Amino acid sequence: MGANKELRVGLVGCGFMGRTHSNAFGKVNRFFDVEYQPVLAAVCARNRASAQAFADNWGYSSFETDWRKLVARKDIDLIDIASPNDTHAEIAVAAAEAGKMVMCEKPLGRNAAESEKMAAAVESARTPNMVWYNYRRVPAVTLAKQLVDEGRLGKIFHYRAKFLQDWTISADLPQGGLGLWRLDASVAGSGVTGDLLAHCIDTAMWLNGPIATVTAMTETFIKERSHAITGKVEKVTIDDASAFLARFQNGSLATFEATRYARGHKALYTLEINGADASIMWDLHDLHRLQYFDHSDEGRVRGWRALHITDGDHPYMKHWWVPGLQIGYEHTFIHQVADFLEALASGKPASPTFREALATDYVAEAVLQSANSGRWEQVRQ
Amino acid sequence: MGANKELRVGLVGCGFMGRTHSNAFGKVNRFFDVEYQPVLAAVCARNRASAQAFADNWGYSSFETDWRKLVARKDIDLIDIASPNDTHAEIAVAAAEAGKMVMCEKPLGRNAAESEKMAAAVESARTPNMVWYNYRRVPAVTLAKQLVDEGRLGKIFHYRAKFLQDWTISADLPQGGLGLWRLDASVAGSGVTGDLLAHCIDTAMWLNGPIATVTAMTETFIKERSHAITGKVEKVTIDDASAFLARFQNGSLATFEATRYARGHKALYTLEINGADASIMWDLHDLHRLQYFDHSDEGRVRGWRALHITDGDHPYMKHWWVPGLQIGYEHTFIHQVADFLEALASGKPASPTFREALATDYVAEAVLQSANSGRWEQVRQ
Amino acid sequence: MGANKELRVGLVGCGFMGRTHSNAFGKVNRFFDVEYQPVLAAVCARNRASAQAFADNWGYSSFETDWRKLVARKDIDLIDIASPNDTHAEIAVAAAEAGKMVMCEKPLGRNAAESEKMAAAVESARTPNMVWYNYRRVPAVTLAKQLVDEGRLGKIFHYRAKFLQDWTISADLPQGGLGLWRLDASVAGSGVTGDLLAHCIDTAMWLNGPIATVTAMTETFIKERSHAITGKVEKVTIDDASAFLARFQNGSLATFEATRYARGHKALYTLEINGADASIMWDLHDLHRLQYFDHSDEGRVRGWRALHITDGDHPYMKHWWVPGLQIGYEHTFIHQVADFLEALASGKPASPTFREALATDYVAEAVLQSANSGRWEQVRQ
Amino acid sequence: MGANKELRVGLVGCGFMGRTHSNAFGKVNRFFDVEYQPVLAAVCARNRASAQAFADNWGYSSFETDWRKLVARKDIDLIDIASPNDTHAEIAVAAAEAGKMVMCEKPLGRNAAESEKMAAAVESARTPNMVWYNYRRVPAVTLAKQLVDEGRLGKIFHYRAKFLQDWTISADLPQGGLGLWRLDASVAGSGVTGDLLAHCIDTAMWLNGPIATVTAMTETFIKERSHAITGKVEKVTIDDASAFLARFQNGSLATFEATRYARGHKALYTLEINGADASIMWDLHDLHRLQYFDHSDEGRVRGWRALHITDGDHPYMKHWWVPGLQIGYEHTFIHQVADFLEALASGKPASPTFREALATDYVAEAVLQSANSGRWEQVRQ
Repeated sequence: MGANKELRVGLVGCGFMGRTHSNAFGKVNRFFDVEYQPVLAAVCARNRASAQAFADNWGYSSFETDWRKLVARKDIDLIDIASPNDTHAEIAVAAAEAGKMVMCEKPLGRNAAESEKMAAAVESARTPNMVWYNYRRVPAVTLAKQLVDEGRLGKIFHYRAKFLQDWTISADLPQGGLGLWRLDASVAGSGVTGDLLAHCIDTAMWLNGPIATVTAMTETFIKERSHAITGKVEKVTIDDASAFLARFQNGSLATFEATRYARGHKALYTLEINGADASIMWDLHDLHRLQYFDHSDEGRVRGWRALHITDGDHPYMKHWWVPGLQIGYEHTFIHQVADFLEALASGKPASPTFREALATDYVAEAVLQSANSGRWEQVRQ
Repeated sequence: MGANKELRVGLVGCGFMGRTHSNAFGKVNRFFDVEYQPVLAAVCARNRASAQAFADNWGYSSFETDWRKLVARKDIDLIDIASPNDTHAEIAVAAAEAGKMVMCEKPLGRNAAESEKMAAAVESARTPNMVWYNYRRVPAVTLAKQLVDEGRLGKIFHYRAKFLQDWTISADLPQGGLGLWRLDASVAGSGVTGDLLAHCIDTAMWLNGPIATVTAMTETFIKERSHAITGKVEKVTIDDASAFLARFQNGSLATFEATRYARGHKALYTLEINGADASIMWDLHDLHRLQYFDHSDEGRVRGWRALHITDGDHPYMKHWWVPGLQIGYEHTFIHQVADFLEALASGKPASPTFREALATDYVAEAVLQSANSGRWEQVRQ
Repeated sequence: MGANKELRVGLVGCGFMGRTHSNAFGKVNRFFDVEYQPVLAAVCARNRASAQAFADNWGYSSFETDWRKLVARKDIDLIDIASPNDTHAEIAVAAAEAGKMVMCEKPLGRNAAESEKMAAAVESARTPNMVWYNYRRVPAVTLAKQLVDEGRLGKIFHYRAKFLQDWTISADLPQGGLGLWRLDASVAGSGVTGDLLAHCIDTAMWLNGPIATVTAMTETFIKERSHAITGKVEKVTIDDASAFLARFQNGSLATFEATRYARGHKALYTLEINGADASIMWDLHDLHRLQYFDHSDEGRVRGWRALHITDGDHPYMKHWWVPGLQIGYEHTFIHQVADFLEALASGKPASPTFREALATDYVAEAVLQSANSGRWEQVRQ
Repeated sequence: MGANKELRVGLVGCGFMGRTHSNAFGKVNRFFDVEYQPVLAAVCARNRASAQAFADNWGYSSFETDWRKLVARKDIDLIDIASPNDTHAEIAVAAAEAGKMVMCEKPLGRNAAESEKMAAAVESARTPNMVWYNYRRVPAVTLAKQLVDEGRLGKIFHYRAKFLQDWTISADLPQGGLGLWRLDASVAGSGVTGDLLAHCIDTAMWLNGPIATVTAMTETFIKERSHAITGKVEKVTIDDASAFLARFQNGSLATFEATRYARGHKALYTLEINGADASIMWDLHDLHRLQYFDHSDEGRVRGWRALHITDGDHPYMKHWWVPGLQIGYEHTFIHQVADFLEALASGKPASPTFREALATDYVAEAVLQSANSGRWEQVRQ
């Protein structure tokens, strides 16, 4: 379409998230008529062969093996961070100081302290920034946001969310290293709290406002695992499961739960909001549907409506195929890039910014504190 | 409640349907405030021990082993026929001639010729009569009827129904005899056409008016089975599966199918109607739900509504428990008795009458003719 | 069937629960071949007209307006308590002291102190006793219990349950009085904690063993309501919503929630258990289904199985209709009576006894304490 | 990845299908490690501006406005036909004669006569060819094929398929012209028979073998519509709805139906197969799930399994994201290109070939004949 301004992207990390981001950068202009066009300028990974193979596969013009070189390059406009969590803060701060735009995979930092530095850095540099909380851009979730913002739900009483997986149940799974750094708290920051609950919290506050207080519990079911890097059996330091009760500032009550020990569920992120006038439910395993209950419907034919989010009047969907035909997971990243590019063109911030993502880290921080203290904890605002 | 007029029931047959009817007669006055109260006067079965045990269990005051004696008794107001299909016509005609009210399990006769005699007999005797097409009284189906009658669906384009079972797939199952007379055409009249399709046809015409023409196919997958009565391997004479295309008089198109060879389905009776303005779907395996799509809903939040038919404003439901709590299969019979008793009190016919049930037999007749002729057949009206 | 020993029942209370119990007593012998036959000897209600009408409708031979007279009658074997919660303890203790068998609606007492007295009384009198936690006898839930007991789930990691309703959202609803005593804590003991969570807790401990510790929150969304008895606007004393995190003694984690402010849900009691080897889910709105995930299935065709609990090899179902045909809410009470009668014949206790139900009250007690203290509370064992 | 052989594509048509194909050609090498790499050499459309805009958007190196010039170009290896049905035969035959590989949108021709010429042309030219019956490459459908081929279903008794849409219900919709040529039989060949039923038939024969005989009905609900090209109200010549009964050569029975008048359904393509040992169901509106019933499961826990087709051992899925994360409609085209490229590398035909697609046209031909004759028609083989 009419894209005529280049946005030269330097990607750090060529794992799972590097793929989703690259696919999004490469595809957005085919489907969205935006002023900017991402150009895949360079990818960076420590392993030279990986970096080169990734660059070849995705069409990056060049590659680096040291992120500092990438950040220093003049021909890069945007640094996109898709490497493990322990690298986020250092890279983001350096990129901001170098005047680059910065996009960062979630969670922002390993902890709120790191995230604060990152938010401060991009704000000090006055540079566009965004965190990849991609589930906001599932069309069904975006529609939920519209319905809430239109006041259709009325006073909110309840929010509940959970994110259930089952991939770490085997005690034979090692921790650390390639593909498994999420099981090593020194790299990941935390376990499911930062990995899965962070998504739930981000969406929740986007839809229902700030969380005020929490009480939580966490558990590590498998206490020791061999470590893929050291080769030794070491204590597992992450939380395998995390659940908390919360009160939002608007007076509504919430339950949140995440685990990697829910046999039968792969990525079952579900959310529900109950308002005085309407309720909504959503489920990542059927991400193209939104369940909607409208109390104003006539009694006899009142019921949960299964909205099939594939029509042209649904968020983002006019850009894709025809009614009835689904899109999937990868499209949430494309939507996020499209929104970032539109925001860039209009000079507005793209949401969630580092500052907004920091709020999620404050909740995660309170959750982990409460799991330790056994008390209700205030969330920093 | 206030029931003060006795209706003395004489039941013929003490198998599965004898149980559902007895339960309905015995329970209706606990939940419905009707003028009449069924009194379980007598049950009749050829086997003396069975008749006595059944009478004891259900509280019948007496029993008979010859239905002619039952029909002749002065202390019986209503003959209820729940014996195999080959007995329906003779008993019904005799009962009508004896001035009894008559209720009859479906299908009415083994074929339209028998049914015509039965309809003529009750009309000649001017006696109340009804056929147990119980699925009309599933609250969700009754609500569907209300929605159609209110014109909510607009012009009807499509009707589709199927009734899928899987209980006769094993070639080791014998035909004929106790519990298996449905596999013997000389007793049953036909196979799934009269057993399962008859239900689909009855509901369809109730909801969507007369069927004009049909083209059909039937199949007998297992060609020979041992016969439980003769002990010999005999040709199977029933249709194991039956499907037909139809045109209703109102111009809508239909597909119908029934089988006992649909692995995984026990009693999956489903129906769907598509109108210009709305559509409905229903499924016997979740009989307390009605799926409803209303095109007048605003586009973005338009979707199939899963109506949970448990509220006080849903048909029959104020008589039962509280919202959210289900009733089941047996309640359809209780509703039918309640409606019969109310009709009796008001002097009106209770639907479906023998005459109305005969219309279903005319469709079944055309279906079997077409399966034989390979041509479209007109349905007798 | 072969029932030949009479069990003369004296029912206290003729509201909603009086109906479900009466239906169960009246119907059990039609479908279950048990030695004892309940005889509806007397019903008791303060209002004479109500008592008489109820007796007439359900076939009780007599009625009383003072429960003390009922308890004193020699021709009563069993006192069944279906009156509001504030009457449970006094009646149950008196009945036990009079040597009667005692059945009691849940929750046992308004609080653990009352329940302790009740449990002590029936044990001291060595009289059969049972509490109507009816959801244990939903066939799908009973099957869940079988699967757990057979060890199919392996080590349990997670339990989650919620009970969602929406009937008290309107601020115009009064509290107290006929049909609304559940909104008056002086009568009910508590709000949703004793009413709804008690069901969740009872099932949970039956399936997964004792709960060790809890942390909870409760909320009263509507602070004042007019009182139907006093006619004044009074402070609402019940909890409208209640949620808690828990740790079971077996090391598994749990989330529990109940509310009457979940728009769109009428009686949505759901439960899920995740074990290392299998998981199960159940939902009261589709009570005839059990969702089951078996990790030992071959990978490619591994998935959640929707078990349609209508077959003869499913708990209780051989007593009802044929495969594919549902039963509903009321049948859970019939099953409970059947089990009570069988236990009586065999001289064993019928579960849950008063002692077992007391354990649920200890959890509810800890929940309410925690909601007040803001701390984790130990559950009394 | 390792693609090192170029396959220079010349696309005809830049409508909806031009987009899906272009997306597939452009994306396949990012996710599939195949020897060949499609190169977007040229796109052809009659309207110069459209052709240029499409080329710019999708990255085609050049464009043409006359397909004959495209076919004549030496720098094109493959002609891909995504223009309206009335152009398929002429272009395909010319392309084959020019020695090009040919891919063609379905249906192959407007009728079997055209399709025969096309099949003969590619076979005479011995050139690789394929028809875009994309739904074979939905991973759930491909898994269904695997299960059938492994014999898991046992003897097949029943097949049923339907494709329901609702986009032409309004009488105000014109026929003919841009985006609406599917309503003009002179362009499309037929209505829903060639558009929707063709998909159902292709999948059905792929899964269950040849169809032997059919009996059908068709209907045109809106008899006249204004024509977008002539500007006049003209008779509607397509079939709005089409349904047929069929017998497969393997003895199984089938029902098929397609319509654009099923209010509430956008693209509801569903299929079900019932075998003696297992059954499967699939639904395009939830395309990432396959319902599977295995009769060999132990009775008590036997039920329909909802397979979530997102795992690495499911067809095609190891190329995408991680378990639990969905792909959508567009990916079926990418899979088809990947399979075509692999077949090319191995020298084998890619399915369905023109010859295989012709078999579908023979069934459609028999359906339309039967709808006219009112008789069962043999399908040409």
